[in-house]
Amino acid sequence: MNLDLKLIAARLEGLEETIIAKLIDRAQFRFNESIYLPGSSCFDGETSTSLFHLRLRSQEEMDSRFGRFNVPEERPFCKDLPDCCRKVDIPDAGLHIDDYNKINLSEDILSAYMALLPRLCRPGDDHQHGSSVEHDVYALQAVARRIHYGSLYVAESKFIADPEGYTKLLKAGDIEAVGSKLTRPEVEEKIISRVRSKVEALQQTANPDIRIVIDPDVVVDFYRQHLIPLTKKGEIAYLVQRVKL
Amino acid sequence: MNLDLKLIAARLEGLEETIIAKLIDRAQFRFNESIYLPGSSCFDGETSTSLFHLRLRSQEEMDSRFGRFNVPEERPFCKDLPDCCRKVDIPDAGLHIDDYNKINLSEDILSAYMALLPRLCRPGDDHQHGSSVEHDVYALQAVARRIHYGSLYVAESKFIADPEGYTKLLKAGDIEAVGSKLTRPEVEEKIISRVRSKVEALQQTANPDIRIVIDPDVVVDFYRQHLIPLTKKGEIAYLVQRVKL
Repeated sequence: MNLDLKLIAARLEGLEETIIAKLIDRAQFRFNESIYLPGSSCFDGETSTSLFHLRLRSQEEMDSRFGRFNVPEERPFCKDLPDCCRKVDIPDAGLHIDDYNKINLSEDILSAYMALLPRLCRPGDDHQHGSSVEHDVYALQAVARRIHYGSLYVAESKFIADPEGYTKLLKAGDIEAVGSKLTRPEVEEKIISRVRSKVEALQQTANPDIRIVIDPDVVVDFYRQHLIPLTKKGEIAYLVQRVKL
Repeated sequence: MNLDLKLIAARLEGLEETIIAKLIDRAQFRFNESIYLPGSSCFDGETSTSLFHLRLRSQEEMDSRFGRFNVPEERPFCKDLPDCCRKVDIPDAGLHIDDYNKINLSEDILSAYMALLPRLCRPGDDHQHGSSVEHDVYALQAVARRIHYGSLYVAESKFIADPEGYTKLLKAGDIEAVGSKLTRPEVEEKIISRVRSKVEALQQTANPDIRIVIDPDVVVDFYRQHLIPLTKKGEIAYLVQRVKL
């Protein structure tokens, strides 16, 4: 695998359309708060969980059997998933990590997404509960893929560019300095501005009488406050475990 | 449910972005022909089916438990699916049909989609088999939803506008005349031209070095040759059963 930072950044850029499209899809439905409340799934025999969690687990059980989580950047939200039933052909990722789940920010991602929802969706209940949880899961998977991909590959690529510099800071336990060394504010601003144009472009031909059009600020703020910081948190976690291997 | 033809057409229009986005998503991966070949799924204990069919069935089994197929326009591709496990709150659809599966064009939709794939995707194999079948299923679901929604609601709405006219032709078994009466060439041309602009707009900010950009003609031809004719086939089938009720 080619760990050129330009190629990795390009892959992250290619995931932007997917994330934005999935968030727009979810926003077509109302917030539908009850789908997130434990014990109100109305699902046979399920008295303690939410419809959202049931759907997330069902999806991940299926995905796990089909081999999704054999891919480094696909980290599950649920635990104790069934084994993969397929022979999956995964090329060497070029990463230095002995268990991909050491970099799993799913809990943080889920919290960030839950905080996003009331801004993304109109309030109220439209009874479209099945569709809402379905699109929640797709949006979460797209966001998580981007964060974990960045955490692993961006970190490895930056490390390779200056192994001595990073090793020194990491061995000294100076996490703050590692964070600063990883940060490129001009790249972050470029991402933010590109995301804003994409949210506008992807909705440009939508008829606002039919499709709910979302405010680009909602996605931009999500990138700025959650997606970029969580990617950086994952990068640091990756590097911390890397020097211990 | 309001069966105003304008509202129904608006809903069909709102599904266009979803269909186009899912086709673009699938096109990011190569054709990967082996995923469609029976007996080459490499799935434990599955020797006679394809990876694509396994994924389609898994998805529909999950969706069925979550109540997707309680919705009139959501018709499954597979048979013998598990029962719905949820209490689903479906408003009266205003349709005249005693079994939604009487209008199920899934076989035709699957053939049309399989014929589309070699034009939509670059040839060859990129080993992204899991992702390819996942996106196949989402694209198929989006296409099928549009065709079945049109088949049911457009037909009912047109029938209500002229029940005597349609009943006379249907009782006389003059299917060709029913087809002509349902057809509005100017609306079809408007759809085609709108779909073309949307394919362009949805890809406008994509970086072609990273994202595969698809030719609008591929989607336009699919609408013209398959999606619109199949919707009309479904409309006729709906009306034929309607006068027999």
